[in-house]
Amino acid sequence: MGEFELIRKFFQREQAENPAPGVIQGIGDDCAILALPTAQHLAISVDTLVEGVHFPVGADPELLAERALRTNLSDLAASGASPLWFTLALTLPTVEEDWLRLFSRGLFAAANEYGCVLVGGDTTKGPLTVTVQIMGSVEPHLALRRDGASAGDFVLVTNTIGDGAAALAAIQERIALTDEHRAWLQEKFYRPVPRLKESALLRGIASAALDISDGLLADLGHICHASDVGAVIDVASLPFSAAMQSLNDIEQARAWALGGGDDYELCFTVSPDAMPDLALLIARGELQATIVGELVPGAGVVCELDGELYRPAQQGYQHFS
Amino acid sequence: MGEFELIRKFFQREQAENPAPGVIQGIGDDCAILALPTAQHLAISVDTLVEGVHFPVGADPELLAERALRTNLSDLAASGASPLWFTLALTLPTVEEDWLRLFSRGLFAAANEYGCVLVGGDTTKGPLTVTVQIMGSVEPHLALRRDGASAGDFVLVTNTIGDGAAALAAIQERIALTDEHRAWLQEKFYRPVPRLKESALLRGIASAALDISDGLLADLGHICHASDVGAVIDVASLPFSAAMQSLNDIEQARAWALGGGDDYELCFTVSPDAMPDLALLIARGELQATIVGELVPGAGVVCELDGELYRPAQQGYQHFS
Repeated sequence: MGEFELIRKFFQREQAENPAPGVIQGIGDDCAILALPTAQHLAISVDTLVEGVHFPVGADPELLAERALRTNLSDLAASGASPLWFTLALTLPTVEEDWLRLFSRGLFAAANEYGCVLVGGDTTKGPLTVTVQIMGSVEPHLALRRDGASAGDFVLVTNTIGDGAAALAAIQERIALTDEHRAWLQEKFYRPVPRLKESALLRGIASAALDISDGLLADLGHICHASDVGAVIDVASLPFSAAMQSLNDIEQARAWALGGGDDYELCFTVSPDAMPDLALLIARGELQATIVGELVPGAGVVCELDGELYRPAQQGYQHFS
Repeated sequence: MGEFELIRKFFQREQAENPAPGVIQGIGDDCAILALPTAQHLAISVDTLVEGVHFPVGADPELLAERALRTNLSDLAASGASPLWFTLALTLPTVEEDWLRLFSRGLFAAANEYGCVLVGGDTTKGPLTVTVQIMGSVEPHLALRRDGASAGDFVLVTNTIGDGAAALAAIQERIALTDEHRAWLQEKFYRPVPRLKESALLRGIASAALDISDGLLADLGHICHASDVGAVIDVASLPFSAAMQSLNDIEQARAWALGGGDDYELCFTVSPDAMPDLALLIARGELQATIVGELVPGAGVVCELDGELYRPAQQGYQHFS
């Protein structure tokens, strides 16, 4: 199968069935030509997943594709942007139709769920690598950034954290769980929910935001660095899922929440002035979020437990470190 | 060196020195936030280069980076778009500072020459792979497409073709050349000139266009397929460089021009009505282009020489074929 036939067979068909707003010219020309909604800014992010580094050899192609797109959508959520389009650069060692069929199914399932459209890409021969570039729109001046936080702001996270690391432990059979908890964690790991709904609510309320991919400590550290502030995390306040709580190992749960990564929840900051608006959203059940600390003058992130300095067991994840 | 330090050291510095129009937020956040010029469409294209497939192991990192960006800019030219921004997804087996310094130098040399700005990316560990996504702006309704051609249109190419394949033969020492011709071909191969100037002149004149990356036969075939027409190439009219002519092997020159690829010249079509406008541009020396054939009712591309059917020696390049 040639490159062009491969694209037509697995990546172009569903495009034609769902022509999307703003796609003047999609797959199949030198460039995609796209019309951004009037008076909006473009938000873009790119992520690469390499076999044997970011996912194991032999990983389920359908879940791989879902995960690749969903984690990229999480970057849009972190910026307060709404999904529009994406491109896919796919490097394959060989053309296996079964693999491509599953990969394509996962990709379009996630794309359709979040209303973003494949507009272009490149297929090449080589070691299995998946690079997704996501594009979205964001209202000028309402993008969520990392550098808008101030000392005195509250630090919050959406939903529960540490589940990404717990899921990995469950998949690798390092922990014992009920079937229900195991299934919940695996779903969260393979099909993370980009917090786009929450992100839309936080525009105009959060002073800074990002998504937790490297662990709360490392990611909150990015906000602190960009905003030139320090942070104190109250370890006792970290929100854990029922699956995490069922393990009855609070130290492990804290280590995963602080340093585990792969959570794709939002970490965001809110000034005292904006807290009433946020509290109303939480009280109405429109947003699930927990205060886990506050920003202070200075630099770096420290953890406290019962008023004492707390030393976390695990640092955030970095490639090449 | 960690991922973040790597980005700061090699990819963020020159960004800060050259803040670009439209870059609301560049490298270092979850998304880049970009403002497209008012009432323009976005043009995007993505290309991956894999070590051992698209470039040899041990290739000069500076030339590799230049080539990666320039070939992507050529896709913008093929669409009649003007460069604005790009992202870089770079997968590296190890962090070698000397390699990164050279790669970064080549990347920013090409970026500065064509006025496009690195706005984001991803660095990962794995087999050496370079994925560039280029973004530009294009006036609505003036994008050059593949599907606008009609039977009766003339087929033209800019400058000379076949040089990409000749350069590869020279680099692999399969042909004998003067030093001057060898240097000219190598420069054209490693630092192809994206035909942005020509492309801007062709907006509103060309009925269809693309850049020649897979060979004239294959690429003109894309225009024919998209526009539902056939084409006849007059082999005697193919324009060759002085370096190609110096080889005194007309059959080899034709084979390279028709099937060699890597030329990054524009192939475009012009209706008889628009030919006077184009001829004026050529006569004024603003554009160098040659009529190499015409479009006919039907499908597919055939070659003629002295009124007889001509069978080219080499087909276009396709991955996975």
